[in-house]
Amino acid sequence: MQITILGGGGFLGRKFAERLAAEGHLGGQPVTSLVLFDLAAPRPLAAPFPVTCLGGDVASLADVSAAIPPGTSLVVHLAAVVSAAAEADFDLGMRVNLHGTLTVIEACRKLAGPAIHGLAAPPRVLFTSSVASFGGGQAALLPDDARQIPTNSYGAQKAAAELLLQDASRKGFLDAVSIRLPTVIVRPGRPNKAASSFFSAILREPLLGLETPLPVGEDFRVWVCSPRRAVDWLFHAAVMETAPLGVDRGINPPGLAVSVGEMLAALSPAERALVKREPDAAIAGIVGGWPAEFTATRARALGFTPQEGVPQILAAFREDDLAATRAERGL
Amino acid sequence: MQITILGGGGFLGRKFAERLAAEGHLGGQPVTSLVLFDLAAPRPLAAPFPVTCLGGDVASLADVSAAIPPGTSLVVHLAAVVSAAAEADFDLGMRVNLHGTLTVIEACRKLAGPAIHGLAAPPRVLFTSSVASFGGGQAALLPDDARQIPTNSYGAQKAAAELLLQDASRKGFLDAVSIRLPTVIVRPGRPNKAASSFFSAILREPLLGLETPLPVGEDFRVWVCSPRRAVDWLFHAAVMETAPLGVDRGINPPGLAVSVGEMLAALSPAERALVKREPDAAIAGIVGGWPAEFTATRARALGFTPQEGVPQILAAFREDDLAATRAERGL
Repeated sequence: MQITILGGGGFLGRKFAERLAAEGHLGGQPVTSLVLFDLAAPRPLAAPFPVTCLGGDVASLADVSAAIPPGTSLVVHLAAVVSAAAEADFDLGMRVNLHGTLTVIEACRKLAGPAIHGLAAPPRVLFTSSVASFGGGQAALLPDDARQIPTNSYGAQKAAAELLLQDASRKGFLDAVSIRLPTVIVRPGRPNKAASSFFSAILREPLLGLETPLPVGEDFRVWVCSPRRAVDWLFHAAVMETAPLGVDRGINPPGLAVSVGEMLAALSPAERALVKREPDAAIAGIVGGWPAEFTATRARALGFTPQEGVPQILAAFREDDLAATRAERGL
Repeated sequence: MQITILGGGGFLGRKFAERLAAEGHLGGQPVTSLVLFDLAAPRPLAAPFPVTCLGGDVASLADVSAAIPPGTSLVVHLAAVVSAAAEADFDLGMRVNLHGTLTVIEACRKLAGPAIHGLAAPPRVLFTSSVASFGGGQAALLPDDARQIPTNSYGAQKAAAELLLQDASRKGFLDAVSIRLPTVIVRPGRPNKAASSFFSAILREPLLGLETPLPVGEDFRVWVCSPRRAVDWLFHAAVMETAPLGVDRGINPPGLAVSVGEMLAALSPAERALVKREPDAAIAGIVGGWPAEFTATRARALGFTPQEGVPQILAAFREDDLAATRAERGL
């Protein structure tokens, strides 16, 4: 099978690609080729199948069509402008998060033509939507049928894109599954422009021996998952039967509801001392609107594995990403 | 106040404009000018204020900006490709229903610039969303927090547009209220390409002495309102305080849940005999996904007047539209 990862230069895209390269197959089918697409061409990847690395604009139909050649079975659409960046630059967020997804739909639809005549199935499209597409805030325990009332542009763009992918699935242009990812911790590398960046930083930076600010209180609750579990979910969504989903292609996966205090408790006292209380109303305002917990009943029934606890999340970071993060940052 | 009606050539736009012309003011403020905009320039309207009739493309920023001059206080955005037409021509539906709304947001945002500096409030935008943006079907009684899971492209485009208008309101580009209109009966004129067209036709055509097909059973239930009540709701939404709405700008107005049989019971036996049972799976498939009833609790609390019964709806049609429809159709 031919697979394309849009946003293949990002950390989740890279992890997805590396697991494909390590396993060589997906759902029992051999991977025959992989396209990694990002704003700048992702760095090469050693794999038992050909890997093409392309740079381009996700809002350009020519660029995206070049990245999704005929015969593509799976498109992992991770290309996004993150929450605080989309809030700061409305036009950029709209361009990437909304128009980029419309472009992916158009590119898949061009391929899907033959599907209608029985020659090929429309490509499966995995879309990473977000907990930020919901409101509700700290008190929320959201059921699967909760409305998406986003309190930020990123979430609004993701929720709108979900609706359009859902309709494109119903029309047979593609076969979408939208995974509304929790806040992913621990992100490797450096702090980024996501409002949720600090949730990773308060664990990662102390492990690197660095001070880091905490913009919210220790009783602040957040819905999280590890990068490993996020990739597990994407792999599962890539091969699951979609007929049981019906029209509704949005999945709230079974993350972990945890407080900042519970996260910090997994650090040593010396590491914990590196986390500095620095209240930030702008960041608290964005993440404070996101729901703290979901029931995720449907996702469990569909075979999505629940997130383990903070100690396992921290262990996975040490195992998978700590050394590379040290090297990348010259520490 | 300067008011613009996009889709001002359509029947609801015309009714809104005629009521403005008759009253001369809105919410206690005199109307100083009105722009009627549609694909073809709407026909002139006699009014106690200047009326400009413009033709143009709602997806063209130049055209829409010309229709929304600086100083505009209210934009009534009714321009749409209806349900069956958007299902038959996906690109046209996307262009008008989604990209048209994005263009309205852009045009208002250009005006809203000074608002941020205290010179003017961002324009109120009334958006007619639809019951078709929900799923649920015949058994549904939807609460105000029901998710929009549309089963048709028109509904998906409307729901996505609502999300983007909501975010634009939060950003201060405009001040939107989205009214999710029930099926409007009795529409004047001729049958159109809306899947719901027959709900008007089974009342209108018999009153004109004409046969008309009924594509669903008599026990089929539908959520309706009259054109008069739809205009009442738009007038209310034009002047209501929006602060109590918070982020959530979508309103399920208090329509009427009624069965086709109850609608036909309002006709005379001779009129009823003109309605011919002609089951149509395509039409039943679209309208069968729409919810049959809403609680509309929030809208009642916000001062939206509930819809009266079928006899009153029929009386309003006879009073407002029957003679004009006869004349238009040469009957």
